[in-house]
Parts: sequence; C-alpha cells; structure tokens
Amino acid sequence: MNKIRVGIFGYGNLGKAVEELIINDERFELVCIFSRRMIKSKHNNRTDFVGNAPSYKEKIDIMFLCGGSSSDLMPQARECLKNFNCIDAFDTHAKIDEHITSCNELALANNKVAFCSFGWDPGLFSLMRVLFNALGLKTYTAWGKGVSQGHTEAIKCLKWVSDAVQYTLPNKTLIKRIKKSNLSANPSTKDLHFRQCYVCADKKYYSQIKEQIVTMPNYFAGYKTKVNFINSKQMQKHKQMAHAGEVFCEGDAINFKIKTKSNPHFTAQIMLAYAIALKRFINEQKYGAYSILDIPLKALLENSKEYL
Amino acid sequence: MNKIRVGIFGYGNLGKAVEELIINDERFELVCIFSRRMIKSKHNNRTDFVGNAPSYKEKIDIMFLCGGSSSDLMPQARECLKNFNCIDAFDTHAKIDEHITSCNELALANNKVAFCSFGWDPGLFSLMRVLFNALGLKTYTAWGKGVSQGHTEAIKCLKWVSDAVQYTLPNKTLIKRIKKSNLSANPSTKDLHFRQCYVCADKKYYSQIKEQIVTMPNYFAGYKTKVNFINSKQMQKHKQMAHAGEVFCEGDAINFKIKTKSNPHFTAQIMLAYAIALKRFINEQKYGAYSILDIPLKALLENSKEYL
Repeated sequence: MNKIRVGIFGYGNLGKAVEELIINDERFELVCIFSRRMIKSKHNNRTDFVGNAPSYKEKIDIMFLCGGSSSDLMPQARECLKNFNCIDAFDTHAKIDEHITSCNELALANNKVAFCSFGWDPGLFSLMRVLFNALGLKTYTAWGKGVSQGHTEAIKCLKWVSDAVQYTLPNKTLIKRIKKSNLSANPSTKDLHFRQCYVCADKKYYSQIKEQIVTMPNYFAGYKTKVNFINSKQMQKHKQMAHAGEVFCEGDAINFKIKTKSNPHFTAQIMLAYAIALKRFINEQKYGAYSILDIPLKALLENSKEYL
Repeated sequence: MNKIRVGIFGYGNLGKAVEELIINDERFELVCIFSRRMIKSKHNNRTDFVGNAPSYKEKIDIMFLCGGSSSDLMPQARECLKNFNCIDAFDTHAKIDEHITSCNELALANNKVAFCSFGWDPGLFSLMRVLFNALGLKTYTAWGKGVSQGHTEAIKCLKWVSDAVQYTLPNKTLIKRIKKSNLSANPSTKDLHFRQCYVCADKKYYSQIKEQIVTMPNYFAGYKTKVNFINSKQMQKHKQMAHAGEVFCEGDAINFKIKTKSNPHFTAQIMLAYAIALKRFINEQKYGAYSILDIPLKALLENSKEYL
C-alpha cells in the first residue's frame, strides 16, 4: 500500500497529537498542517493557512479535522468535504445526526468519504453500547475521572471567573451496586457522576459564582457539584489531559474500560486506526458519510485471519 | 419485522441455552429442535431427528448450529447450508479458516448466509483484539477462571480416568505487570495461564495419570499445571459452567472483560444478537460466509442513532 497522504486541519491539542502519531507511523505521510493562525509546527512540518487548503486538493488523501466540536468542526467539515476525504471526532452528542446528514450530502455531491465522530465517546463507547444492548443487557456509561472540556468552558465564560477546570467523576458506589444487580431504581447519568470544579476568581464574588455554577441548566443543575476556589498557581497542576470511562452493565457480565493519560492522544490513536478503513472506503469508491457503527472491524486490518 | 423462524441443531448445553433465550424473545419463533438422539424439549418445543431437517427447508429462516466444535460442527454446517442459513460458535481456532472457506463455497452455491464462529472467543474477543491492535497497542488475551471443555475432554480420554474437569486460570500477577508496562520479556499464552485439574481415578494409578497429564503435548506440556485427585462426590461441585476472560494491553489504556455464570448462556446471547444481523444479510441477499469481523455493529440494531 502507498503511504496515506494526510493533512491536519486545526492545530490545538488534538491536531498536535495527530501530528505526533503520524510522523512516527510509516503508513502515513504528513503533507501539511492548516490553521487560521500563523503557527509553527512542533516537528517542523509544513504549515499553511486554512484558506489555502483547497490548493492541496490533489496532494492529500485524508484530512484530519481537529477543530473544536462546539463551533469549529461542523462548518470546517462542510468546507473541507468539497475537496477532501475527512475524518473527525465530533463529540456534541445532540448534533451528531445533523452533522452526519450534512456531511453525507456534501460527500456524495463531491465523491468524497467522511468518517464522522470517530473518537472514544461518541466512537468506541458507541460500539460497546450497541453490542451490550444487543446482548440484552441493561447498559450504562460512566466517564471520569477526567476533565470535561464543555463544562470547563461553561465555567470560564462566567463573569468574574479568570480560570477554571471541571472534573467529571464516576459515582463508584453506585456503579458497584449496578454491577452487583443491587438496585431499587433506574439510575440516570446525573446519578452516575459527580462534578468537581476548580475556579480562580476574586474572593468577593465566590458565593455568586458558586450559585451560578450549581444552578446552571444542562451543565450542573441536578448534579452533585462541588466548587473549589483556588489561586492561579494551584491551577497549574490541573492542566493535565488524563481521562477515563467505562461502558458496563447490570450484573457485570461484560465491561469495556478506557483509561488514558492524554485524552487527545488517545482520540488521535482512534482516528489513525480508522483512517486505514477510510482509505479502503476511498479505494472502493464508497462515497458518503459514515459513523463508527457502519465500519466492520475487518476494515482496520491488512490480514484479519490471525485475530479470530 | 416478522418473527425470525429458528431451528436449533444439536441439543447439548448450547442448544438448551439457545432454546431458553429464544422462547423468551418475541423477535423469534422456535420451529423445531433437531438431534441425532431421541430427545424431549425441556419447554415442550417440537423436536425431530437431524435426518428430517431438510423437510423444514421452507419453515426455518435461521438454523442455530449447536453441535460440538471438535467433531460435529464442521460436517453439520456443510449439511445444513444446503437448505438453511446458519449461525455457529465454532471455536477450534486452528480450523476457523478452513471452516469459513468451506461454508462460503456452500453458502454461495445454495444462496445462503453463514455466520461462522460467533461466540466470545473466537467472536467478541476477536473484535477487541483487532481494535486494540489497530490502536497500536500491544494486546493480550487471558481466559479464566473457567472450565476448558477441550482440556477436560483430553483428561477424560486418559486410561484409568473416570471423571475430570480442567480449569484455566489467569496469571494475575503477570497480567498486573503487563498493565503496568513493567515487563522484561514478551509473555506467551503459556505464561499467562495456569491449568488446574480435578481428576477421579483409582488411587494406584495417580502418579501415572499425573505424569500423562503434565507432559501432554499441546494441552499441558509447558504450562504450569496442578493435578488434584478427588472422589466422585467432590466432583459434583465442579459441574458448573462459569467462565471469564479479558482482552487487555500493555499500559492498560483499554480493557474488555467478560464474566459469566454460564458459558453456554452467554454464547447463546451473542448468537441471538447476531442473528438479527444475519436476517438483514438474508434480506439483502448477501450470500456467503462471514466472520464477526465482517459485520458492522449497526447491523445489530433497528435504530442506531441513539447509541452514538
């Protein structure tokens, strides 16, 4: 197989993690990293502005979309699919359907393949939820301990807050009870998680900020939430990117766990693994947009027999 | 969707477990259980001799092949595929390739679909090995604690042995070290498991039997094996069918575990889950033989969107 020629679109944590993996994987060749900003590649790879990307149309097989899910990814995917086959780890659960539908139209119109939401949740965890449910098992997902980017941003946007981080923690006692089939009621996602917040702010606004956080609809209201105020020096030790999670079921017959020191690195690993399948789909001219549920695992392999 | 009309071919532990699930699942209708012997169904379902199966050709959508892998399944699959779409949990790893190849020829010749080796290993564990390896992770499989049918049979066949059971146990210390990336050498399957044997026999042959077991090539030679002699009353408490296992990787970033009180029950759950996909393949006339790696998980679902 020829090397897969790759572009990286967006140079934040995920883009950097993809770069790191690509340059150490001889199946791939990194052609260019695109950004809206003037950037310098950590490993001296070629960089260019996103506006110049279309001129690389013939030089790139797969574009790794590494923008943020909240506002960047959907418009970026629509723009890129005019010229490139794309893979992303779009993770706004409520908008996945809309994202795949719009990518599918564009991909079909331009003879391109789009792999949408190939991260760990949505992504690998989606595979497991489908599998566990198909086995007739009552299935749950628990995240953490790890930083939730969305909840962290929601706190940072509050007035008077200078910095913040939000950890999602699993409710271990409840998880243990589910695994032992020792439950009276049906636990919800809110029951399964705690929210631990670390916030930097002026002392005189502490009580207002705390009130705004714990009552914030969709994000914190209804969750068991703890707000800790710390200074900016103490905040430094919270700049890590570890994350974890598991899909499990009542009775504990089957269990799937992820535990990573770097959330973006692990997401990049998943995207690279599925880029092999994406290249196959391109070669077979299977144009359109796909979710991870559409891809048979055999498509990740050169030779599948040994794994059975 | 109309009910899927099912036949069960073979009425041992697996056939009984499939029956139990089918009669409690309104998506399926159990048409008949076939056996070489004269049997009575535990739940008063229709039974017939295997030789009469062809006359059910138009009445059964999917035949669940529940014979033993060691000698029954391969010829039974070849016989059944002339008239039926089939699913099996064939688990003789060394012969899977041969099994799928011969099923594929027959399925294509008869416009049938065959799903081969849809159990938990080969089966779900195969999916995980492919996935973990594609992520670039050094991947291992450990089985147990649970009874290995093959090893139990191998001991039972020895002269002077009246009854036996063999438990496969995982080497927990070694597994822990792999997960901590704390290893000097590459552990093999032999390093990862212990073999615990319980044997009923005449006391005067104990030492010969023990010697025959621990030196048995392919089965015990090279494994850390313990042989315990017990009486037939003590053997009664070893007639359970619990099993467990996990696919894991160096560094423990990702982990998939199965723990079941009944190995045949869990295997039957997997076969039922994939029978939904098999019915889809029949409807779409995708004739031929498939392994679990060929099936996108979406095929297990009516509505996949909620799982992403």
